[in-house]
Amino acid sequence: MAQVDTDRFLKDLNELRKIGAYKTGVHRPTYSPEDMESRRWLMERMREAGLEPSIDGIGNVFGRHPGPGPKLLVGSHIETQNHAGWLDGALGVVAGVALARAGLPVDVVAFADEEGHYGSFIGSRSLIGLLEESEIDSLKNRYHGKPLREALREAGLEGLPRPRLDPARYKGFFEMHIEQGTQLESQGLRAGVVTGIVAIWQYRLIIEGMQDHAGGTTMAERKDAGLTAVRLLARIDREFPMLCGPRSTWTCGRIALDPGAPSIIPGRAEVLFQFRDIDTAVLERLRECLQRVVQEMNRTERTRTTLETMSESRPAPCDPAMQAALAAAAERHASGQWQHMPSGAGHDAQYMARVMPAAMLFTPSIGGISHHWSEDTKEEDLALNLRILADAAEAYLRG
Amino acid sequence: MAQVDTDRFLKDLNELRKIGAYKTGVHRPTYSPEDMESRRWLMERMREAGLEPSIDGIGNVFGRHPGPGPKLLVGSHIETQNHAGWLDGALGVVAGVALARAGLPVDVVAFADEEGHYGSFIGSRSLIGLLEESEIDSLKNRYHGKPLREALREAGLEGLPRPRLDPARYKGFFEMHIEQGTQLESQGLRAGVVTGIVAIWQYRLIIEGMQDHAGGTTMAERKDAGLTAVRLLARIDREFPMLCGPRSTWTCGRIALDPGAPSIIPGRAEVLFQFRDIDTAVLERLRECLQRVVQEMNRTERTRTTLETMSESRPAPCDPAMQAALAAAAERHASGQWQHMPSGAGHDAQYMARVMPAAMLFTPSIGGISHHWSEDTKEEDLALNLRILADAAEAYLRG
Repeated sequence: MAQVDTDRFLKDLNELRKIGAYKTGVHRPTYSPEDMESRRWLMERMREAGLEPSIDGIGNVFGRHPGPGPKLLVGSHIETQNHAGWLDGALGVVAGVALARAGLPVDVVAFADEEGHYGSFIGSRSLIGLLEESEIDSLKNRYHGKPLREALREAGLEGLPRPRLDPARYKGFFEMHIEQGTQLESQGLRAGVVTGIVAIWQYRLIIEGMQDHAGGTTMAERKDAGLTAVRLLARIDREFPMLCGPRSTWTCGRIALDPGAPSIIPGRAEVLFQFRDIDTAVLERLRECLQRVVQEMNRTERTRTTLETMSESRPAPCDPAMQAALAAAAERHASGQWQHMPSGAGHDAQYMARVMPAAMLFTPSIGGISHHWSEDTKEEDLALNLRILADAAEAYLRG
Repeated sequence: MAQVDTDRFLKDLNELRKIGAYKTGVHRPTYSPEDMESRRWLMERMREAGLEPSIDGIGNVFGRHPGPGPKLLVGSHIETQNHAGWLDGALGVVAGVALARAGLPVDVVAFADEEGHYGSFIGSRSLIGLLEESEIDSLKNRYHGKPLREALREAGLEGLPRPRLDPARYKGFFEMHIEQGTQLESQGLRAGVVTGIVAIWQYRLIIEGMQDHAGGTTMAERKDAGLTAVRLLARIDREFPMLCGPRSTWTCGRIALDPGAPSIIPGRAEVLFQFRDIDTAVLERLRECLQRVVQEMNRTERTRTTLETMSESRPAPCDPAMQAALAAAAERHASGQWQHMPSGAGHDAQYMARVMPAAMLFTPSIGGISHHWSEDTKEEDLALNLRILADAAEAYLRG
C-alpha cells in the first residue's frame, strides 16, 4: 500500500494558503499576481516530488512523471473565486503532488480558470482541444472586463504553446474536491465517492405584458408580467416534484420586473431558471414540463412568455471501476462513514471524462460553505481522504 | 346656464402645451425654468380672467376672485412628470380659468409638485397646514438629488409666505382630470363622475433564507427566499379575489432576489406589494389576509418573512352633493355616456377633501396612457367636460 505523507500534504496546503491570504481564506483570481505566484510555487513542489513541471499558454500547470508504464492524471484547479476558501481546487492539486511524492506513477495538473473569471473551464477544455483561439480573443474578465489576451500577456503566458493531452497515456483521471454542500456533514460521513457530475440546463424566461398605472388599471384589464412569472414559478413548484429524480435540483436565481417601481404594473419580467440532474432522461422530463408550463401560461395568461435555452450541458458519469476502487478504499479507511453521491456542481473532471475514465472523491465541507473565505474542512478528514485517494489510485492502476 | 368659451379653453391648453414642449407632450418638472414659465403664464391668464394672481413660497399659484359671496375652489397642478403629457394636471387648472372667465365665482389654484419630483403633494399639503418647514429642509429631488430649498431659491420662491387656505371661503373644490385608465374609453363613455380617491396601502416584505450553491444543496435542505416569495405571492393571487371589493387593485411592482445569480439559491428576497380601495373595511380585510399569508409562510416555510408597513393612506370619498351636481350635468350634456367611478390614482383633491367638500370629473384618456408624452384626449371630450364642470359648479353654488 502506498505510504502518503499526510503531514507534508497538510503543510503544503497551509503554505499555499499564505499566497493571497484573505482572513482565513484566500483571494487568488485567475492570472492575478497571487495566482501566478501560486502556479510557480506549485511547479517547485512538483519538481521536488520528481515531476517535470511546465506551464502552457492558457496557464495550466502540468507535472509530468518521467518514468515508464501506465499513468494516472490527478489534479484540480489552483485559482479561487474572489475572497474564497483555501481548499476549493487547491486540495485536489496538492493531493496529486502528495501521490507523486509517495511514488505513484501520476501526472499532476492544475487547470486554469475553473472558477470562470474569464470563461467556462478554459483550462481543461484547452487540454482536450475544445478551446479555439477565436474564443480566447473574445473572452473578458467577468468582474472588471479585462480582455483574456491582455491578462495572458501580463501573466507572461502569451505565445506559450497549448499542448493537448494524450489520453492514451492515462488509465484515468482522479479529482479530489470539497463537497460544497452538507450531505456528508449532516449524515456524519467523512467521504463521498462521486457517481457523476450533474448536467446543468439553464433557461431564460421572458414575459411580456403591458406596463400600466397600478391605480388606474383594473385587475380585469391588466397584463401583469410579474404575476405571470409568479404563477409560472408556482406551477413549476407543484409539477417538478412529481417528475424529478431523487437528487434533482431546480433553482430560480433571478426575477427581474420592469420597471420595478411600487406603483407600476410590470410590463416585462425576466426569470433565470435552471435544473440539474445526472440522468438525461430526468432532464428531458423536466424540460418537457417547463415547456408545457410555458405553453399553459400562454393559453391562460394575458401576457406572452418566451422560453430561451441558455445552456444544456451533458452529465458526466464517473467511471465504474474507478468508483469501485474509491469505494473499496473508503470502506477500508472509514468503514460505514462514506457514501456514493452525485456532484451538483461542475468540475474539471467533467471535461476529462470526455477523453478518459474519470472519478471524484469528496471531502466534507464544514457547514456546506464554499466560495466564501470561511470555507473549511477538518484536517483529519483531509488526511483521511488523501489516504483513500492514494489507495484507490494504487488499486486501480494495478487492476 | 354659465356660457363657457370652449374654443378659448382649448386655445389656452394648446398655448400652455408649447411651454416645455417634448414631441406631442411636455417636459415641465417642478421648479424647472419651463415650470416657472408656465406658472407666470398662468398668472397672466388669471389676471385676464379677472382673478388676482399670486404665487406662494412652495410654488402654488393662486387666482383669487375679487367679488363677494360664496366661492368654489377649482384647480389641479401644472408641472408634469418627465417627458409626459400635455393634459395631466394642466387640464384642471385651465378649466378653472375658463370657469372664472365665464363669470363663475371661483378661485383657481395650481398646486405645486403634485407629480412628486420633490415630495408627496407638498403644494396641496402646504395650503392646509400639513407641510412643516423641517420637511422642506429634508426633501431632495428624487431624480437628481437637488435639495428642495436650493430649487426654491433658484426658482425665486425663497422667503415668500405660505398662506393657508380659509376653508370657510368655499362651498367646495372641483378638480377636472384625465382618467389615466381605459375604463371610460373601453365602454365608449365620455365622462366619469368620481366617487372618491382610493387609499393606497403599501408594504415591503423581507424574506430571509440561506444563500447556497444551486448544485450542492438538495431541495430538502434549501432555505430559498425566492421560492417563499413566489409561494406567498401565489397565495395572495388565490386569496385576494375572494375578499376584495369590485374595484380593488393589488400590485407587486418589485421582486428583488439576492444575490440574483443563476446558480445561487437566493438568501434574501424583497417584495414591494400594495393594494388600493376606496373602502376602509375592504382595505382592512385585505391587510388581514396579507398578515395571515405571512403568518402561514412562517409556519410552513424554512425562511422567515417580515411584513413592513410603508404607508397606509386614507381614502377620500367625494362629496355626495357635488357628485350629484356633476352627475346631473353629465346626464344633461352626455346622456347615457358617463358613469360613476373611483379614482385609482392619487390627486390633490384628496387633501382638499380634508378641509372642504371636494369632487372630481374625469375625461377619457386615449389608450389609458398617462405619464408619457403620447398621453391625449379628444378635443370634443375636453370641451364636453368643461361644459359639464361649468354647469355642475353653477348648480352646486345655487343649491
